[in-house]
Amino acid sequence: MRPQEIIEKKRDGKTLSTDEINIFVDGVCDGGWADYQISALVMAMFIRGLDQGEQDELTRAMIHSGKVLDLSDVGRPVVDKHSTGGVGDKTSLIIAPVAAACGLAVPMISGRGLGHTGGTLDKLESIPGYSIELSTERFKELLGKNGYAMIGQTGEIAPADKKLYAMRDATATVPCIPLIVASIMSKKLAEDLDALVLDVKTGTGAFMQTMPDSLALAEALVETGKSFGVSTQAVVSDMNQPLGKFVGNALEVYECLKILRGEADELMLPTLELSTELTARMLVAGGLVDSIESAKGTIDEVLKCGAALEKFRENVEVQSGDPRICDEPEMLVTKDLLSVPIVVESAGFLVGIDTKMMGNSISEIGGGRTRAEDKIDHAVGYSSEVKIGYKVESGDTLGILHCRTREQADQIATKLLNSHIVAAEMPIKQNLVRAVVS
Amino acid sequence: MRPQEIIEKKRDGKTLSTDEINIFVDGVCDGGWADYQISALVMAMFIRGLDQGEQDELTRAMIHSGKVLDLSDVGRPVVDKHSTGGVGDKTSLIIAPVAAACGLAVPMISGRGLGHTGGTLDKLESIPGYSIELSTERFKELLGKNGYAMIGQTGEIAPADKKLYAMRDATATVPCIPLIVASIMSKKLAEDLDALVLDVKTGTGAFMQTMPDSLALAEALVETGKSFGVSTQAVVSDMNQPLGKFVGNALEVYECLKILRGEADELMLPTLELSTELTARMLVAGGLVDSIESAKGTIDEVLKCGAALEKFRENVEVQSGDPRICDEPEMLVTKDLLSVPIVVESAGFLVGIDTKMMGNSISEIGGGRTRAEDKIDHAVGYSSEVKIGYKVESGDTLGILHCRTREQADQIATKLLNSHIVAAEMPIKQNLVRAVVS
Repeated sequence: MRPQEIIEKKRDGKTLSTDEINIFVDGVCDGGWADYQISALVMAMFIRGLDQGEQDELTRAMIHSGKVLDLSDVGRPVVDKHSTGGVGDKTSLIIAPVAAACGLAVPMISGRGLGHTGGTLDKLESIPGYSIELSTERFKELLGKNGYAMIGQTGEIAPADKKLYAMRDATATVPCIPLIVASIMSKKLAEDLDALVLDVKTGTGAFMQTMPDSLALAEALVETGKSFGVSTQAVVSDMNQPLGKFVGNALEVYECLKILRGEADELMLPTLELSTELTARMLVAGGLVDSIESAKGTIDEVLKCGAALEKFRENVEVQSGDPRICDEPEMLVTKDLLSVPIVVESAGFLVGIDTKMMGNSISEIGGGRTRAEDKIDHAVGYSSEVKIGYKVESGDTLGILHCRTREQADQIATKLLNSHIVAAEMPIKQNLVRAVVS
Repeated sequence: MRPQEIIEKKRDGKTLSTDEINIFVDGVCDGGWADYQISALVMAMFIRGLDQGEQDELTRAMIHSGKVLDLSDVGRPVVDKHSTGGVGDKTSLIIAPVAAACGLAVPMISGRGLGHTGGTLDKLESIPGYSIELSTERFKELLGKNGYAMIGQTGEIAPADKKLYAMRDATATVPCIPLIVASIMSKKLAEDLDALVLDVKTGTGAFMQTMPDSLALAEALVETGKSFGVSTQAVVSDMNQPLGKFVGNALEVYECLKILRGEADELMLPTLELSTELTARMLVAGGLVDSIESAKGTIDEVLKCGAALEKFRENVEVQSGDPRICDEPEMLVTKDLLSVPIVVESAGFLVGIDTKMMGNSISEIGGGRTRAEDKIDHAVGYSSEVKIGYKVESGDTLGILHCRTREQADQIATKLLNSHIVAAEMPIKQNLVRAVVS
């Protein structure tokens, strides 16, 4: 069957058969379809949509485009967490050691940052010496022994997604629920999970900016997970401001260590709160505890007694990082950066933040990537001094830009300031966890 | 402006600005846009549509992507004909010499066949020695001197269209009115015409299969021509069966010579009828005669007196072809081909032909191209013995397949037979010229 015939069907809004979807995914992987044919079909899928059956078949075909892990012998319940991506979202670095300390195996196969969002791998690589290169065998061994290990998506898992994702990013076809579901779930379902907890972000820093869209995505993800026989639930969490205090790779690791060490300040508490919520659901889904409440108690214990910090240290050691950062998190903060205060000119309440603009600004000076091939500057970033709902006076510092040069400051300081919306009226307080879909 | 932003706008059904359309066309020409970004936008244009303003701007940007001819000094009215493509459509080979004999300059810049449709250049190249390679200077000189010359689209004229067209063919985005209009009109309007007569095909062998679609295309083409200040009209002509008797490159040139020599048989008459209609409109539009009726009289004269045949001979000579074919058209018919009769098994009336299937069948054995890089076998083809409305008895010959090998016959004889629909009731007679839009 020629690519044109399959493209034509979706172009005209018809439903693709299992065979046609398999031909497409095969063509993506073996080069039988030209890039421009792939992107034409993806655009047609974006505009015309995929029904539940097509979405499941696309996910299945993408899972089987690569290797499916066998984690049946790690000796712990295998439960993963996946976030749809946001700004300052560093929960993976807390969830993995905490959940491992509680007895789960967390096959944390992570990604890199792109656009305004950060990526766990980039954050980890700000730890001196840390390597995300592990063989699949070593990864499995560490999962059983330590409860977690951190690697990147290999070319072996869901290779179709790797190619499709890069193309979608360049063709304005990212924010499309069936394509997002197939992309996320093909990678997660190749991990041989017992359960999956998803963190669907909603707000100005998320791919889905409105609650209806985020709920729709959460439902579609959960539906797909279940239809593949994996216990799946989704937390919809607020992304109308960066999560916690810091944005920027090394600074975010610093924040996580402060939390794991029990030294979190008020601005870091949302990171702890969301990490706890997600980990608690993982523990229950993995069958280790009976209720969210008692799970939260267990999490509190492994944090207080230092077991979670020790898990983190263990991981840094086995992945060739410098474990001294666990005792001295300040090692992660580059000393000779410029600290540029972002000063508000009017008084009122902080009612909103253009979080995407903020994330993009930090990316611009090297904190993230504009293109997949860009290099990261792990040191640069931003620290918030205020959260939405805070009262501010003219001259107050909203946050501090940590950058290398005066030129960088000139380039983005105004954008950072303008990403804050100050108004006379106090905003309605939003919960961090906006909804749970299960 | 990043390609993604422009793609996103059209993806969401918004109107593109002149600047955005220019950025796109520049990106197509200079490689600034990746192929997969081009095809993603083209698919979004296909599904979401373009309004009249966008269509005009796209046409304008594509015209100015290359060189615009200056034919102001050829000393004759410059009038062209363009067909949207069909099966057995060889009118260009008659129209050019007839119109030139009547005093027009016809800058016949033609294409090659693709898919089920044939192309004028391929037909010409079945003339021994004939070369379609002429410099622009020589082409202009011949236009003034002889009234016509035959060349292919050079990379210099509307290069954006060349790239877009190849991509559209591979991505199921060909049958879309705004894209067709921009493609056709960018090439034709770069020819510095005084007037343009379009032949929009309708039916089973046309890109537009229904009258409403064909009329819509005709109207859009005429509207665009006028908005660029060129007198433009469109004939909508029947393509529910091959035009005339022969399909296949050399065989079609043979048919044209028989017509130019006044030796047409009944099955060839539709070719003459449509050629006359289109040429008559060109003569009136070019200001050489006052009415279609008197134009048809003039055409009849130049055919009868042999002036049109002499124009054809003159062209073959200057383009290095063997002029003896004008005296011996049979030279074009390869002697050692197999002649395979296609025999009907039931009695009744021929009520329809799947003309696309017929065209594709001939392409399959080398009469046309499945891909742009395929080689042509100029000799093979098909000759019809019946037309729609003819009464047939079981055992009658519907037509003859002219092919090289038994394998080729086995491969397509059944398809050729099955492309004929025979039924008990006599079909309603359709005119060859179904509508005129001006």
